[in-house]
Amino acid sequence: MDFASDNASGASRKVLEALVAANEGSFPAYGGDPLTQAAEQRLAEVFERDCAVFLVATGTASNALALSALTPPFGAIFCHAHAHVMDDECGAPEFFSAGAKLVGMPGVAGKIAPSDLKTALAAYPRGLVKQVQPAALSLAQATESGTIYTCAEIAELARMAHAAGVSVHLDGARFANALVTLDCSPADMTWRAGVDVVSLGASKNGALACEAVVFFDKAKAVDFGYRRKRGGHTLSKGRFLAAQMLAWLDDGHWLQLARHSNACAQRLAGALGLIEGVRIAWPVEANELFVVMPRRADVALKAAGARYYEWSAERLAPPERPADGAIFVRLVTSFITREDDIDRFAAIVAKASAA
Amino acid sequence: MDFASDNASGASRKVLEALVAANEGSFPAYGGDPLTQAAEQRLAEVFERDCAVFLVATGTASNALALSALTPPFGAIFCHAHAHVMDDECGAPEFFSAGAKLVGMPGVAGKIAPSDLKTALAAYPRGLVKQVQPAALSLAQATESGTIYTCAEIAELARMAHAAGVSVHLDGARFANALVTLDCSPADMTWRAGVDVVSLGASKNGALACEAVVFFDKAKAVDFGYRRKRGGHTLSKGRFLAAQMLAWLDDGHWLQLARHSNACAQRLAGALGLIEGVRIAWPVEANELFVVMPRRADVALKAAGARYYEWSAERLAPPERPADGAIFVRLVTSFITREDDIDRFAAIVAKASAA
Amino acid sequence: MDFASDNASGASRKVLEALVAANEGSFPAYGGDPLTQAAEQRLAEVFERDCAVFLVATGTASNALALSALTPPFGAIFCHAHAHVMDDECGAPEFFSAGAKLVGMPGVAGKIAPSDLKTALAAYPRGLVKQVQPAALSLAQATESGTIYTCAEIAELARMAHAAGVSVHLDGARFANALVTLDCSPADMTWRAGVDVVSLGASKNGALACEAVVFFDKAKAVDFGYRRKRGGHTLSKGRFLAAQMLAWLDDGHWLQLARHSNACAQRLAGALGLIEGVRIAWPVEANELFVVMPRRADVALKAAGARYYEWSAERLAPPERPADGAIFVRLVTSFITREDDIDRFAAIVAKASAA
Amino acid sequence: MDFASDNASGASRKVLEALVAANEGSFPAYGGDPLTQAAEQRLAEVFERDCAVFLVATGTASNALALSALTPPFGAIFCHAHAHVMDDECGAPEFFSAGAKLVGMPGVAGKIAPSDLKTALAAYPRGLVKQVQPAALSLAQATESGTIYTCAEIAELARMAHAAGVSVHLDGARFANALVTLDCSPADMTWRAGVDVVSLGASKNGALACEAVVFFDKAKAVDFGYRRKRGGHTLSKGRFLAAQMLAWLDDGHWLQLARHSNACAQRLAGALGLIEGVRIAWPVEANELFVVMPRRADVALKAAGARYYEWSAERLAPPERPADGAIFVRLVTSFITREDDIDRFAAIVAKASAA
Repeated sequence: MDFASDNASGASRKVLEALVAANEGSFPAYGGDPLTQAAEQRLAEVFERDCAVFLVATGTASNALALSALTPPFGAIFCHAHAHVMDDECGAPEFFSAGAKLVGMPGVAGKIAPSDLKTALAAYPRGLVKQVQPAALSLAQATESGTIYTCAEIAELARMAHAAGVSVHLDGARFANALVTLDCSPADMTWRAGVDVVSLGASKNGALACEAVVFFDKAKAVDFGYRRKRGGHTLSKGRFLAAQMLAWLDDGHWLQLARHSNACAQRLAGALGLIEGVRIAWPVEANELFVVMPRRADVALKAAGARYYEWSAERLAPPERPADGAIFVRLVTSFITREDDIDRFAAIVAKASAA
Repeated sequence: MDFASDNASGASRKVLEALVAANEGSFPAYGGDPLTQAAEQRLAEVFERDCAVFLVATGTASNALALSALTPPFGAIFCHAHAHVMDDECGAPEFFSAGAKLVGMPGVAGKIAPSDLKTALAAYPRGLVKQVQPAALSLAQATESGTIYTCAEIAELARMAHAAGVSVHLDGARFANALVTLDCSPADMTWRAGVDVVSLGASKNGALACEAVVFFDKAKAVDFGYRRKRGGHTLSKGRFLAAQMLAWLDDGHWLQLARHSNACAQRLAGALGLIEGVRIAWPVEANELFVVMPRRADVALKAAGARYYEWSAERLAPPERPADGAIFVRLVTSFITREDDIDRFAAIVAKASAA
Repeated sequence: MDFASDNASGASRKVLEALVAANEGSFPAYGGDPLTQAAEQRLAEVFERDCAVFLVATGTASNALALSALTPPFGAIFCHAHAHVMDDECGAPEFFSAGAKLVGMPGVAGKIAPSDLKTALAAYPRGLVKQVQPAALSLAQATESGTIYTCAEIAELARMAHAAGVSVHLDGARFANALVTLDCSPADMTWRAGVDVVSLGASKNGALACEAVVFFDKAKAVDFGYRRKRGGHTLSKGRFLAAQMLAWLDDGHWLQLARHSNACAQRLAGALGLIEGVRIAWPVEANELFVVMPRRADVALKAAGARYYEWSAERLAPPERPADGAIFVRLVTSFITREDDIDRFAAIVAKASAA
Repeated sequence: MDFASDNASGASRKVLEALVAANEGSFPAYGGDPLTQAAEQRLAEVFERDCAVFLVATGTASNALALSALTPPFGAIFCHAHAHVMDDECGAPEFFSAGAKLVGMPGVAGKIAPSDLKTALAAYPRGLVKQVQPAALSLAQATESGTIYTCAEIAELARMAHAAGVSVHLDGARFANALVTLDCSPADMTWRAGVDVVSLGASKNGALACEAVVFFDKAKAVDFGYRRKRGGHTLSKGRFLAAQMLAWLDDGHWLQLARHSNACAQRLAGALGLIEGVRIAWPVEANELFVVMPRRADVALKAAGARYYEWSAERLAPPERPADGAIFVRLVTSFITREDDIDRFAAIVAKASAA
């Protein structure tokens, strides 16, 4: 019963086998190999567009490097106040951008509202020398609250950003989870909606360690190779990243993995939602649930070996915060989550809550 | 006949199998897993000392992060003028250190001489505000010229550095290759000789992508976790790094791999050294050869599909530079180099040189 | 009628004359001169404590350099959401700290409340690797809203900060204005209340360009000389900074200048406060007023050549924001403000508001 | 007898009076005042070209900010191995550029030879991802050895740089000293010879603290205002910088001051050159002399209160280094140097050397 993180899983069998298969032979280092070329080509097909592709091993690198390509050191990066890039990367975006400022915006359930973006953009007028200059908007799809933007919502925010001369980055650590919920094409959810760069994450959803930074405007990527290299993110044996990405994208594998994760989240939400005293905070639209439940359920779950994180109640509006005797937790499903674990988890909560 | 790079190989079977075995199950992310703990423990045993260990995926990250822990932004990092950290990492040490200055020293065959270190240290007196302050000495073992320092040589340079308040870093991208040549213990080649931090590389010698930053003075490592995280170098599924390191170190595997590489280099050097018109530039002490040979040998080798890099003749003293009709090349052997490729390579050179 | 900025003034006659007097003779450069030594000594007397003093020419340099001495690159700097260091220095603190994160806190009238500091500190637990680490608290005295903290308020915030291992910086661009209002000693308002470093500003209050960074804990200042130098803030002819500081501090000159500014602000507030339709937003405790007034008053003032800035109504709570037909402005007095300008300004507002 | 530094002097009377005159009245801050506008206009006339001008208070800021506008963080800045930007600014160029690498070139008497620039450019091929990318060439005019480039020499180096896509910066801390020696126009010595940006220094030659960064290609300056601001180098009372620059440039004042300094250097060189046992190391072309003299002369001078710095003998070719009993020193003249001090200095040397 591990609902702590989608990073708790290993790799899917298919991805692992591809990695093993890629081991044979001697190939040019640092991405000069044919697998890397094939992965770049494959991503262009997946996104239905010529694009500049760079593989890296971590999501933090993918986000921070992508943002560094969009902002000068004196730039403002607009994001949700509780975005991963804001809260969970130990200042990586500031590091890679040489000191750009992340401007956090409020927003219910992890989503940025157009009105809040409007206010934020207005607070950073272009040309006002005493302030950092508007440079990038970073959206997470899915968000850190397990919710997703519709393509139309992305498009509206992107339009506003572009009108202010601001580039649009998509933190796609859970890109596939959002995609299968929306049931749209990768192109619809990105460049057709105005996204300039996507950090496409495979690690949380079946890869060992593989992320792709995909630039739809190749002009923005001209310096990226140098940035990746000096960041120490150009793997010497690049074929091992490429092999993961190719297998992951092959034959809809990534979507199948995401569908499983999402279905598990729905099953868990369905079961928990029926229990009195349990409340699910935000819409469950990907593979994460945020749940207020009795503390005695927490005790029982821990006793049974369940794993998950308590979450900051500050993320909830004051009236929605857990009362005494309750706790706010995050539950994450993944491609290896099993139905019986879900059912057992829910049963423990139900029993303890009724006690 | 691929002598281009030790990064052209994949992983050893043993390392790969360990990676596959590590895939099962659900474990805490970001290095909180038992394999990571075991790898840290194992490295402490290997180095016969309590130490602080951090695994990363690339050598550039390992070097640049290690150096960033030793220098303030206004520090001087002393290294060979053609060290990897100086020439081949696109400014990663400057990036991770927020702008420290690498001070290149001359030195025959890639090695720093005590007299040159003395001069360099004297040029950066502590407390002279207009200058960057002496902070770190970075030695490569083996060097970029395929040579190695004896333990006594390391100790002498380290003593001089420490006397000037300068910490000592060892770029051990080819640590194992040097170790088996010296036939000493890891402790002898590092902390017993005064090394404070070693970047221990497995990637070039049998791993997919795995390096360990090992601090012998744990006080110097207190901030390293944050630096690694904000550099995007904390892998979410840390067990995959640990599995590689454990298998690589297990039962002398790393030394066996290095012995093979080195033996291949010796065999190649032996064969080439007999050929008239061919000259080996520097002592072959690890798994690299630097060779002046006739251009017609180069033509014949390329025609036969051999791979290797031409090297900058500027690295040679003027009288040793290739004359017209000759070329200076680097040849690298690895754990997958085969004897028949060596013999075939040498035969082609011999035949073409004699033509 | 220039109420745009206290930077609109030149220097006081006394400061200017000291500058001229300092011109004679030949002295060691870069702060090695006797005037610089005397200024350092004088500041130690003023603060009743041995301290490390560094003179610079701008307030942004003073703040950003001071903060860079308190935080690692992966640190969090807590400040008011609309602090000068947050909003008006184009990212200088991020630049000088190599990418630290400024964490803005809300707070009425520019002041940080202990409860908000508590929440902010709780959001950045020490040792949580994925987050930047708590490093510094920056308070402005006076604040950007023209208000001031009592010594007890500073002490309470400083206690909370220190308990969390966080150093305390005071942005004293308007230090003297706050000091004369509190009628306390410089020591009371700083180190006795727990302040570790103060950026003491003279430029806005009678100097041409002179600020002092004063460290009460000299251990925190050991690297500061290098930081100032590489920031390009070590003036070659340091005596010109020292001469300003000495004259400014001499015989209570700085306090006289500040008293005049503050008295002008009170006189203006008194006059405007009587006018129907005019509202002063926050307590006038230093030399700034923030005023909601009818737009027709704005028109009349501009027609009469008055200078001041419109201010962001976002800084006001929604119910206090100007209605249609009204405008929110900032008015700043300085040591050169004249009473007749104040009276004329108020008369214009009164007449236009009554129209 | 102060020959320690041209920074030991104060300001010229004319500059000082202009500063005092600029004090009256109330003006927009941060460079929005009419004097700043006039100074920009005046510099455009002096350089016979529309240009983007930014005033700052220090030479280090001027150099480092200018270079940061020419290089990406992963760029190479080519300069003399003993340039001021390399040796005397505590890493400011690395800081402002977010980690660019300064590549030092050898060169007799502080001057870069075309052949050495060719070698350096060849060592940093564009597009080689593992290396920093060629970005800027920084020449000092006059050099740190007191020598100067002819306009033709500048033009040749600039042509080579531009052919490699490298911008050209001129460190003009002693611009006027070089200009009067060459007896050419500022335009001839800069943009007509291919210089893209000049750091024009007034501080060492009659100003209190004033330097101008002048961009001949305004496109390179679009971001400069932000860079200056976040570097803390935008003075709040900008008129005080402008007043210095205007007075300094007025009616050839800057050239008169430089002519005096240079003439003093010639007089001193003439006198010292006649003394047996004294050797002047490099051509005296500006206001600096580098002299090998007997240690007993040094003793006598010090006893008489003379001030100057011993200089690193490493800057001399081995056969030219001082023998035992001799010392290598730098002597700098300035606009306040007096003939009788020169004559007295030379007399002491002559007497002691003959002893």
